[in-house]
Order: sequence, then structure tokens, then C-alpha cells
Amino acid sequence: MIETDILIIGAGPTGLFTVFEAGLLKLKCHIIDGLPQPGGQLTELYPKKPIFDIPGYPSVLAGDLVDNLMEQIKQFQPGFTLNEVADTIRKLDDGTFIVTTNKGTEHHTKAVAIAGGLGSFEPRKPIIEDIEFYEDKGVEYFVKDPELFRDKKIVIAGGGDSALDWSIFLADVASEVTLIHRRNEFRGALDSVEKVQELKHAGKIHLITPAEVVGLNGAEHLESIDIEENGAHRNIKTDYFIPLFGLTPKLGPIAHWGLEIEKNAIKVNNALDYQTNIEGIYAIGDVNTYPGKLKLILCGFHEATLMCQSVYNKLNPGKKYVLKYTTVSGIDGFDGTRKEAEKQVVKAIE
Amino acid sequence: MIETDILIIGAGPTGLFTVFEAGLLKLKCHIIDGLPQPGGQLTELYPKKPIFDIPGYPSVLAGDLVDNLMEQIKQFQPGFTLNEVADTIRKLDDGTFIVTTNKGTEHHTKAVAIAGGLGSFEPRKPIIEDIEFYEDKGVEYFVKDPELFRDKKIVIAGGGDSALDWSIFLADVASEVTLIHRRNEFRGALDSVEKVQELKHAGKIHLITPAEVVGLNGAEHLESIDIEENGAHRNIKTDYFIPLFGLTPKLGPIAHWGLEIEKNAIKVNNALDYQTNIEGIYAIGDVNTYPGKLKLILCGFHEATLMCQSVYNKLNPGKKYVLKYTTVSGIDGFDGTRKEAEKQVVKAIE
Ligand SMILES: Cc1cc2nc3c(=O)[nH]c(=O)nc-3n(C[C@H](O)[C@H](O)[C@H](O)COP(=O)(O)OP(=O)(O)OC[C@H]3O[C@@H](n4cnc5c(N)ncnc54)[C@H](O)[C@@H]3O)c2cc1C
Ligand SMILES: Cc1cc2nc3c(=O)[nH]c(=O)nc-3n(C[C@H](O)[C@H](O)[C@H](O)COP(=O)(O)OP(=O)(O)OC[C@H]3O[C@@H](n4cnc5c(N)ncnc54)[C@H](O)[C@@H]3O)c2cc1C
Repeated sequence: MIETDILIIGAGPTGLFTVFEAGLLKLKCHIIDGLPQPGGQLTELYPKKPIFDIPGYPSVLAGDLVDNLMEQIKQFQPGFTLNEVADTIRKLDDGTFIVTTNKGTEHHTKAVAIAGGLGSFEPRKPIIEDIEFYEDKGVEYFVKDPELFRDKKIVIAGGGDSALDWSIFLADVASEVTLIHRRNEFRGALDSVEKVQELKHAGKIHLITPAEVVGLNGAEHLESIDIEENGAHRNIKTDYFIPLFGLTPKLGPIAHWGLEIEKNAIKVNNALDYQTNIEGIYAIGDVNTYPGKLKLILCGFHEATLMCQSVYNKLNPGKKYVLKYTTVSGIDGFDGTRKEAEKQVVKAIE
Repeated sequence: MIETDILIIGAGPTGLFTVFEAGLLKLKCHIIDGLPQPGGQLTELYPKKPIFDIPGYPSVLAGDLVDNLMEQIKQFQPGFTLNEVADTIRKLDDGTFIVTTNKGTEHHTKAVAIAGGLGSFEPRKPIIEDIEFYEDKGVEYFVKDPELFRDKKIVIAGGGDSALDWSIFLADVASEVTLIHRRNEFRGALDSVEKVQELKHAGKIHLITPAEVVGLNGAEHLESIDIEENGAHRNIKTDYFIPLFGLTPKLGPIAHWGLEIEKNAIKVNNALDYQTNIEGIYAIGDVNTYPGKLKLILCGFHEATLMCQSVYNKLNPGKKYVLKYTTVSGIDGFDGTRKEAEKQVVKAIE
């Protein structure tokens, strides 16, 4: 059982910054995310694109913002349960919660901060007969661990950045990479498209376009796929089929936690602390809604900050909280580090 | 008469970022500040100190944050009325406002955003007989324009960073610089203290400690000052006396605008848009108060953003606002510039 003060569901920018604000108040955080890496939409959907409306950053790449947030919070040593989706929640008599993931990992926490964004990302699955049967038996919707494909034959399908980038990356790992797309044109960063072109000419990526995968074969595990190319069918031997048709976020299991939902988002008390209708459960960032709500990164930062204060006050009743400026008081990390402004000297001039 | 969509009172981080969010909505801003430079508390009180809780910045010097904000907003060409304090406000029949400064400058605006922080900064004045008489006639509490002191004799009083830094700077401008402090010890950055020591030895700064200025003389303009040093009095000829004993913020004239005030701050509707009790007047950043309020820079950014949306909706009734991500839509500056993410290519691979 993982123990923590604040359990954060969602490692997007809002969830990450929560660790920092909680840390200033000496509260320990643990984060669950269904994706293999932190960063939420920024890492999953647009890591190489610039954001122009982060205050104080005339421009920052989404991936760099996530790196900076990870650097900013590392002194508060957050725990991570990645690749797992928060599935069920149970409130104990003492007001604490147990949250269990789809893989059975249990987390015991004093407060829950849902920072789930648009929800947990689920792959867009192609409509192919029996595809569910082959999931985890040769069909993979994410590349969680490239080593799985070491010296294997793989077929990737898709026409966007993920399909291009993973084809390039896995060309050095798999024994054979085939990229199938239902159009001749790919949509992606110029250098990715050019790199695939190069690897194709070097014989390291087989390209089949326009074509579609229409059938999967194999008794226990995937052995081959059927493709349709210009009206004709043919069969290709492969160990893995990786359809990369994008991800769609779904509010998912959280929708059944008894929270008030409106427009696919969780209603919160924005006049105070972004708490939901269940005491001890807060919702911050893109996942919440209230009058005037804007789904912007900078708003999640503010919501996280006010929420942490509320949690602190509830966990420390009677203790009067005095706001301390980081500039003035410095920061004591849970890892023993200390950050502080250079001290002024008091010195006579002779 | 200066015309604008949103008149911002206060050029601190909150006021500056307001220009950006307003600009995204094609609203033009003008800023009034009583200080000679933008940045509010950050520039005036701790420009060289690091802040650790700006989201995405593990550490940033206050002065650098202000520079970055100025860079971020420049494409939206804000107007500035600096060195003037917003003094009176008048609401016209059409719901617009006229705000007049202490120097008589008039601003006509559709909405007012008070981002006045802890208020307008007022110098701590030493208690010396007739000092008010000599204001603007040889007594200066700010160094607004160093050229005023070119080839003049000046006396600076104070023992902190401002006194040290201006003594250093003006040593190259004035014909004679005397620094007076009532203690032997100065409190400031180590390199400032050392630099003053150096300049003293080079004969470029006269140091008199421990001593106090106790009298001012001159018929039309300051001609000399009286100081008390170890119980003895003496007279020093000087053209200017610059007491730098720090600034204290006072809510000031805004306190008389008919706004609901609580704990020296302006009450706002935090459940919606940070509007005050007067329609069309908003209060954002350190200057406002509501349940759970935290006087932090990152909170001002969020408040400014929601406020701009509200102003936009009021000025464009019936027009449905659709949030656009800067990453996706780019930014069109009022100066004709455009910022945008690199476009993806759509390209066949041969
Ligand atoms: C193309 C694009 C451009 C954008 N440009 C901008 C911009 O310029 N400026 C701006 O401010 N915003 C922009 N946004 C929006 C911005 O990305 C979001 O506001 C931000 O990501 C919200 O952060 P968050 O932390 O609240 O949620 P998210 O980033 O969505 O992160 C939520 C995380 O929660 C996880 N999760 C959800 N449910 C569960 C569960 N049950 N169990 C485990 N994990 C779960 C998800 O996997 C995800 O990682 C853009 C968005 C897109 C798609
Ligand atoms: C030493 C110190 C360290 C700090 N450290 C941190 C930190 O680590 N993190 C953090 O988040 N915050 C910190 N703060 C607080 C932070 O500086 C404030 O939250 C921030 O400055 C508020 O910004 P603002 O724009 O709302 O107001 P301000 O920065 O106060 O700016 C208000 C401006 O309005 C002007 N003004 C007011 N009234 C009038 C008027 N009538 N007419 C014209 N102009 C007017 C003033 O001259 C001023 O320039 C610190 C503050 C101090 C003093």
C-alpha cells in the first residue's frame, strides 16, 4: 500500500505543479498516470510545439515546460505510479481514501487531487475483427517499452508524427519495420518525414501506401496480418502490429466516483478551494468546470496552489498558516537540499 | 485624452500580464504607474533576488521575470503613463470611465483593471523641519532621471541597497557624492558594499557615518544641509538631498473610489471574474481580497486572464467566445508581427 498526503491523479502540468505547492507546505505527494511518462497533453500531444501564453515565457516548447516543472518539483520527491489508470476510490471512516488502479496498485491518502485533464488517454482502435483478442498478444497501441520489439518483425500503421517517429526509432531496434498508411501523404514535422524517406531508401523501413490492415491471424499470438492495397489483398508475416491512430481522452473511471459532472468535467467550488461535492476530493486543471472556467495551463497552476492551502488547513486545524515568500524563506527540499536567495551582508565601510 | 479598452492601474507582474491576455482578445491596454519603471514590487523591492515559485521556473530573478513579461507583451504595444498616480475616477453615462492622475493626465477607458498591488509606493520621509518646502527644490525621494544630478553636489542618506547602488551610479554623474548613514554598518549585496568602499578610497564618494541630516537651508532652492555627527553639528553645501529610506505602499487615492475595502484590499467576486462592487472596475493581483486569497504572483496571472475574458464578453455581447490555444492559433501582434508554431508538412514519401 502506497501512503501519501495528497494523491494526485494525472501527471499533466497541473498535477506536477501541485507537488511543488504541496511541498512548500511540507505535504508529500504521489502521482498516478495512465501514460508511460509525465506531462499530460503537453508530452503526449505536442511536445515539440511552442506555447506562447505561459506567464514569463514569451515562448516555451511544451516538452521543455514539462522538463522545467519536473526539475522544479524534484526536491519534493514525488512518487509515481505510471502506466496505470486510477480505477476505484473508497472513503474510509477516518476521512482518508484508498484509490486502486486498473492493475490493482493501492494508494492510501489524506486528500485526493484529480488533475486528470480531459481524462485518461485511450487509443483510437482501428476496426478490425478480433483485434481485442490480440491485445497484449501482438497488438500494441502504445510503445511503452521499445525493448519488447528487439529483433522482432513489426508493422506500424498511421500517418502522423507518432507513426513516423516510432518507425524511425524502432528501425534500429526491430529486425524489420513496415509502415502502412491509407494515404500516400504523411502529416508530420518536416525532418521526420525526410528521415523516413531516407530510411526507406536505405531499406530499413518498408513503406506500403495507400493500404489498410484488414485482418489479423495467429493461434496464440499474432503471426501475420492481411492488408488491402489498391483493392488487392495480401498477407504479411509479423510479430507485432502497432496501430498509432492517435489517442482520445475519456473521463473514464472517475466518472463513476459519485462526483457531480457537467459537460464531461467535474464541478468544483471555485469560490473557495476547487473542492468537489465530496469532501477531501478536489479537481484542478482541465478536468474541472465552474462559471468562467478556461482550460489553460496557467489556470491549473493557480487552482493547484489554492487547493494545497485548503488541504493544509484541513490537515492542520487550528494551526494558523502564514504565507511565506519563496524569495524570503527559501525552499527546504524533502531530499535535504536547500534553495535560497543570496544573503545580504551587514558590513561597515572603512 | 488617452483612449484605451482596458486601463490598468499598476505595472506589476499582474498588470503587465493583463496586456498579454487582453491582446489575445484584441483589446488594447494602457498602464498607469506611480513608479518610474514597470515591474511593481519585483523591480522596486527585490530585482536581483530569485523567485522559486513561478510555475515552470525552478528559479528566476525578479528583474528577469519582469524583462520576460515586457518581452511577452511588447507585440500588443501597451501605452504607459509612468511617474503618475491614478487619482480620481469618473463613470460616464455610457458606462465608460475617465481616470485622472495626480499630474492631470486623463485616460478614457471601457474597463478599469486595478492591479495596484499593495498600493502606490510612497517614500519614507525623514522627519526634518521644512522638508516638504524643499521637495522638488532640491529634495528628491526617487532617482527618476539621473541627468538631473549631472555636475551637481548631492547628498544621499540611507544604509540599504538603494542608497549604496545610487551612490555608486551617481559617482560618475554628479560632481560630488556624499553618503550619510546613521550607523557604521551598511546592509546590502556584498559587491555593492565593496564597490562603495573602493569609491570611497578613490575619493569619489564621501562617507559620513554615523551621522544624521537634521536641517535644510536655502532661500528658493536647497543650498546646504546640517548634519549631526557624534553629537556635533556641521553644515555641508549641496545642491540635492536624496533620502533613500525605503518605500511604503499605501492603497492611496483608490481607497476613495467607492470600492468595498477589507483589510486594506479591494473585495472582488472571485466566483466569477474578479469584478469589484462597481461594474466595469476589476481588481486583480495583490490588491484584491476574497476567501482563500493568496498574495502570490502566479495567482495574479490567473485572475488577470479570467478578468480579460469577462471584459471581452461584456464588450462583445452576443458574440460567442471560443477559446483558442496560442500553440494552435499563433499570436497576431498589434505591431503586425505574427508568432506561430512551425507548420506540419503534408508530404508523400517516394
Ligand atoms: C494541441 C494543443 C495545444 C494547446 N496549446 C495550449 C496553449 O498554448 N496554452 C495553454 O494554456 N494550453 C494549451 N493547451 C491545453 C493544455 O495542454 C491543457 O490546458 C493542459 O494540458 C491541462 O493540464 P492538466 O494537467 O490539467 O491535464 P492534462 O495535461 O490533460 O493531463 C491529465 C493527465 O491525467 C491523466 N489521467 C486522466 N485520468 C486518469 C486516470 N483515471 N488515471 C490515471 N491517469 C489519468 C492523463 O493520462 C493525463 O496525463 C493545448 C492543448 C492541445 C491539445
Ligand atoms: C521581498 C519580497 C519577496 C517576494 N517573494 C515572492 C515570491 O517568492 N513569490 C511570489 O509569488 N511573490 C513574492 N512576493 C510578492 C510579489 O512580489 C507580489 O505578489 C507581486 O508583486 C504582486 O504583483 P501585482 O502586480 O499584483 O502588484 P505590485 O507588484 O505590487 O505592483 C503594483 C503596482 O501598482 C502601482 N500602483 C498602485 N496604486 C497606484 C495608483 N493609484 N496609481 C499608479 N500606480 C499605482 C505601484 O506603484 C506598483 O508598481 C514577494 C514580495 C516581496 C516584497
